[in-house]
Amino acid sequence: MMDEAAIKAILARDAERVETYLTNQGPQGNPLHGLEIPQGLADAVAYSLMAGGKRLRPALCLSFTRLFAGDDEKALPFAAGIECIHTYSLIHDDLPAMDNDDFRRGKPSCHKQFDEATAILAGDALLTDAFFLMSSCAESLPAERVLQAINRMALAAGSAGMVGGQFLDMQYTGKQSIPLAALREMHAMKTGALLQASCLCGALLAGAENEELKKVAAYGRALGAAFQIADDILDETGDAAAMGKPVGSDSANGKITYPSLLGLDESRRLAEEEHQNAVSALEPYAHHAECAFLQGLAAYVVQRVQ
Amino acid sequence: MMDEAAIKAILARDAERVETYLTNQGPQGNPLHGLEIPQGLADAVAYSLMAGGKRLRPALCLSFTRLFAGDDEKALPFAAGIECIHTYSLIHDDLPAMDNDDFRRGKPSCHKQFDEATAILAGDALLTDAFFLMSSCAESLPAERVLQAINRMALAAGSAGMVGGQFLDMQYTGKQSIPLAALREMHAMKTGALLQASCLCGALLAGAENEELKKVAAYGRALGAAFQIADDILDETGDAAAMGKPVGSDSANGKITYPSLLGLDESRRLAEEEHQNAVSALEPYAHHAECAFLQGLAAYVVQRVQ
Repeated sequence: MMDEAAIKAILARDAERVETYLTNQGPQGNPLHGLEIPQGLADAVAYSLMAGGKRLRPALCLSFTRLFAGDDEKALPFAAGIECIHTYSLIHDDLPAMDNDDFRRGKPSCHKQFDEATAILAGDALLTDAFFLMSSCAESLPAERVLQAINRMALAAGSAGMVGGQFLDMQYTGKQSIPLAALREMHAMKTGALLQASCLCGALLAGAENEELKKVAAYGRALGAAFQIADDILDETGDAAAMGKPVGSDSANGKITYPSLLGLDESRRLAEEEHQNAVSALEPYAHHAECAFLQGLAAYVVQRVQ
Repeated sequence: MMDEAAIKAILARDAERVETYLTNQGPQGNPLHGLEIPQGLADAVAYSLMAGGKRLRPALCLSFTRLFAGDDEKALPFAAGIECIHTYSLIHDDLPAMDNDDFRRGKPSCHKQFDEATAILAGDALLTDAFFLMSSCAESLPAERVLQAINRMALAAGSAGMVGGQFLDMQYTGKQSIPLAALREMHAMKTGALLQASCLCGALLAGAENEELKKVAAYGRALGAAFQIADDILDETGDAAAMGKPVGSDSANGKITYPSLLGLDESRRLAEEEHQNAVSALEPYAHHAECAFLQGLAAYVVQRVQ
């Protein structure tokens, strides 16, 4: 098993590659488009995109490309596009009509820093430009693979995935309780689908076969579940400064969480179970150096809360 | 030149094909995804998507596929995706933070019929699912062509195109005046880019070459300009029932229009000039039956206001 420092070093290295790509070629810079972007829009996009996320989703994409012997440099535009999709979802989730969150990662959320119209449009721009970036991969990768990955990513991010999950989240907000199965399904769509698709797209870009994709999907599903349960636990027990938001903000916002349904102990047990599921899914690749990173990442996600 | 009845018949036929496809395979129906979509979200998507638009953009895509000897049936998923992008843009433009329009095509706008969060998410879902539909074309068309078309569509719809144009529109709203060049540039991004890309994507899917794409781009640019100028004129002179919105709503909303900058006569002259530009761009294809439709369509767009 890879230790936490080594995992963080790989995450930091890939985050820097993604950020450099986004700075030079992303929607807030003009060179790739060759077309002018209104300055105020570019500013809002850059503000949210460069707010210092961990870049976990693009890191998963790049790592799975490496696991299946692909050149992760060629997958970089796709990975950068995934981060754009993630960032758009945060901007829209924070809007007054949605979660009405004034802060994100310790800074004013996009609609507070700019205004609501700008935040809606910055999200729309990031989501659309993401598909521009992802489809730009065709310059160095087989078009069939890129198209398959785009298809998978759009499915995961759309009405049957992330957007559908956010819709369910809005419906459940303020309710006294919902069945555990409904909470799991909502998070599988809202958070899990994009994490899982990030893994699958990395594998698809490297040309992984169907049997391999099943294992990747199992890892991605378990990692997404572990991640969300840990996030819910951290919201109750964590350090406000480290999270960039107040402790207990979920319950203050009327959100049902794993701890609110199951208690902290059972939630921790469930997170650990999903961690083990993620590790098991990749056992067939245990001989591969990249596997140590991916299995260690699943441990890193949950060990913060054990 | 094709007469108006024949043009309307082709538009109606292609609109029906697109609507049938969207009903059976689109984001508000579940079969294509094989995954469940929350009912309330599917309802909002269906409400806006099936509100009876003319389906001009998918019709342009299908017509250009035919012009370059492609099988337009294979381009249908792509054309349906374009209509999803157009519909999302209308939903988000109507939001309270944007144009705050309570009506669209004579019915309550999406956020009035449902609520604001649902309207934001319905737009997000349509935009994302559009790329799912467009990338589904790979089953019957060469992946390279589909990917090129997706790349072009994302560029036209994103921060350097439609979203950027909407941002400029918001900035110009309420101003006393702006230069004519700024108004043209704003509309070229907000309305023109998607119309032009609809033409280009149809041609790309049929395998058109670079020299041909230049002519398609010129037609699409001129058609988009003619369309917008005519729309501005109609807003002042048109029939409220036919438009589904009050006469003069642009000036009531603080929008700068071609008539407000140039007067009605000069606006009509400019629309006619752009109509002629569109017709000229396709002269090399005058021998092709499809050309009569496309040239006639440009005439149809402006003759309503002459």
